[in-house]
Amino acid sequence: MKPILVFQTDFTYKEGAVCAMYGVVKSVDRELEIIDGTHEIPQYDTWSASYRLFQSMHFWPEGTIFVSVVDPGVGTPRKASVAKTADGYYVVSPDNGSLTHLKEWVGITEIREIDQNVNRLRGKNTEGVGVFHGRDVFGYCAAKLASGIISYEQVGPAYSIEEIVTFPILKPELMDGKVKGIFEINDPNFGNLWTNIPMELFKEAGFNYGDHLHLTIRHEGKDVFSKRVPYYQSFGFVGKGEMIIYTNELMKVGLALNQGNLCECYHLHFGHDWEVEFEK
Amino acid sequence: MKPILVFQTDFTYKEGAVCAMYGVVKSVDRELEIIDGTHEIPQYDTWSASYRLFQSMHFWPEGTIFVSVVDPGVGTPRKASVAKTADGYYVVSPDNGSLTHLKEWVGITEIREIDQNVNRLRGKNTEGVGVFHGRDVFGYCAAKLASGIISYEQVGPAYSIEEIVTFPILKPELMDGKVKGIFEINDPNFGNLWTNIPMELFKEAGFNYGDHLHLTIRHEGKDVFSKRVPYYQSFGFVGKGEMIIYTNELMKVGLALNQGNLCECYHLHFGHDWEVEFEK
Amino acid sequence: MKPILVFQTDFTYKEGAVCAMYGVVKSVDRELEIIDGTHEIPQYDTWSASYRLFQSMHFWPEGTIFVSVVDPGVGTPRKASVAKTADGYYVVSPDNGSLTHLKEWVGITEIREIDQNVNRLRGKNTEGVGVFHGRDVFGYCAAKLASGIISYEQVGPAYSIEEIVTFPILKPELMDGKVKGIFEINDPNFGNLWTNIPMELFKEAGFNYGDHLHLTIRHEGKDVFSKRVPYYQSFGFVGKGEMIIYTNELMKVGLALNQGNLCECYHLHFGHDWEVEFEK
Repeated sequence: MKPILVFQTDFTYKEGAVCAMYGVVKSVDRELEIIDGTHEIPQYDTWSASYRLFQSMHFWPEGTIFVSVVDPGVGTPRKASVAKTADGYYVVSPDNGSLTHLKEWVGITEIREIDQNVNRLRGKNTEGVGVFHGRDVFGYCAAKLASGIISYEQVGPAYSIEEIVTFPILKPELMDGKVKGIFEINDPNFGNLWTNIPMELFKEAGFNYGDHLHLTIRHEGKDVFSKRVPYYQSFGFVGKGEMIIYTNELMKVGLALNQGNLCECYHLHFGHDWEVEFEK
Repeated sequence: MKPILVFQTDFTYKEGAVCAMYGVVKSVDRELEIIDGTHEIPQYDTWSASYRLFQSMHFWPEGTIFVSVVDPGVGTPRKASVAKTADGYYVVSPDNGSLTHLKEWVGITEIREIDQNVNRLRGKNTEGVGVFHGRDVFGYCAAKLASGIISYEQVGPAYSIEEIVTFPILKPELMDGKVKGIFEINDPNFGNLWTNIPMELFKEAGFNYGDHLHLTIRHEGKDVFSKRVPYYQSFGFVGKGEMIIYTNELMKVGLALNQGNLCECYHLHFGHDWEVEFEK
Repeated sequence: MKPILVFQTDFTYKEGAVCAMYGVVKSVDRELEIIDGTHEIPQYDTWSASYRLFQSMHFWPEGTIFVSVVDPGVGTPRKASVAKTADGYYVVSPDNGSLTHLKEWVGITEIREIDQNVNRLRGKNTEGVGVFHGRDVFGYCAAKLASGIISYEQVGPAYSIEEIVTFPILKPELMDGKVKGIFEINDPNFGNLWTNIPMELFKEAGFNYGDHLHLTIRHEGKDVFSKRVPYYQSFGFVGKGEMIIYTNELMKVGLALNQGNLCECYHLHFGHDWEVEFEK
């Protein structure tokens, strides 16, 4: 059976871009199965693109091909690539940081630059277009690969995994009974914040469900929030609107307001300058 | 042929939750057909979840399996269930009010609580997760059921239909030439309001297309709106921006501004405390 | 193989309309393949509906059936039609301007009015409904056509192509070294503006990538913007936030802020009264 194509972009569905891109895929091979990963990655946010690939990929059947198009540098010399992960997935994406989490946390075993002489859409008045590689390069090449028209080797020349463009990833730490990390990403729908701290580190620190922990949040080095907050396995263990520390869907430590929006309520966000510290 | 899976949630597509959930389904059985019902149910709004299930279900082929995940109580002792409707559909959902309209207006003939010892996702670092039953319980169990890996009986133990959690549903009435009801739901896109009054009750009251009716809206017992409004079969029978009483897609009485947003324009909403009355 | 059905509407996914419409399609024929073109056409905007059909259609396999439901006149005497394009696609749509660009730029070779006596959904309490032709007429009839239950001729009676409702389309011009046109549409996601000027006209005028051009924008006859702006093949050739003239995905001249939102930043929009002029 041909592999599934899962797409994620920052295109939204507000205009015809996704539709044109999917049309190209279906014109390569009518049988291919297309799934919307999401088309609502925040605009130009290659960090989020990277995180979302990591978040959902391993739930898919091995061999699934992910197409990720968050591509502020479209048409400039950034590489258009297809990576192979250590656990057997393919990712078709600009090499612009979107592969960061997969490289660091899963492993990339091979990466190839798409040879646009053979793996770029021809005709249909597209050959002078430099702004829509989702349609003309990534979607088209992914469809050829999924269809079996080209092998992975025929995508284009391999290059060194060392060359992959990545963001720095900070590691959480446990010291003197304090667990420190950062807010690594948010849930833009429910407004929760996800730290880079694995639940195991909480266990190691002796923090258990039911405990109340001292939480301190620092932005750009300054304390912006400090409170004693309970740690539970899910939101409904506290009252509506109350703050909770919980274990998120990737077994990392998260922060939420039960049925509220934590990010909006306290003007919190994520990134390297958003440090978080927990203590009993 | 295996039944279709139709999903509705309040997850949105803003992050990777839907993608992870669908990956689980496809990993259970690559052949399963997944349809987006909607992922934009208002957050935590189990009433809307209930209404939307009712609104669209009977247009699908018999046997279709609906997965509804609006689940503010995820991880708490609310039941995770699979219901069977009187007209032959299955609904996989938390038993938290989301089954109200189906129970009242269609009938539920059997309900079973998902046995999480056998019908919960294992591995992939999910076993300590208490916050994402869409992926780990509802999506996974629905996929097993659709695939035929488990029978309906193997979902888990049946429990009494009487125990199903429901909201009260008010009945409309005709008295002294007045038809009274409530705004039961809105159309959050176009801003129309849908009453709980079937068109038949209008007929019984002698109201016909072309009539102008006295409309009174009360919120928490106080009159908030009063106007003479024409009743027609569709929006375009009045001028742009004008108010109209019409028969909605479920043959109930609706209220709209032609090409306008009634809810926003007059600050109207729906619920038990939004009464509406029509008179010739 | 049965043709794909590609849907575009202004329904959004905020409530159950898309779900009900797709259920009808699957009830006609379980095998049919449904693709979301977009459900986020701006409300009632038949001009955008027309443009989006044109923008993506030719990337799909020949024979694909597009269902376009932006239908402010639903239930009034506007025609419900199925058009056949010169390049071999079908469009199921209200004949309300939504066919403008296809007629002008691609060609429509035949058009038929849907005979609602035979090609309208029956039963399921829909027969008195006048407000949801997406479900009851367009989706249902398209499904029958795609399934082969009816031939194109059985859609209903043909009528003259001359009768198709269209908007006027302005032509761009080159005179005295100036290229003039209008903003024809925007990209509502990234905030770019697309003119009606083909790249060829720029070539003819002697404008090349790397040139800086005098740009003037007039709204309702008044100058609202004037600046010297560089012309490049893609966004990343200028700094973040800088303005650029570029060649868009349909080989027409576009205007953008690199990684910014041009429409919002300068309060620009599209339409016949938004003229744009370029000069060396």
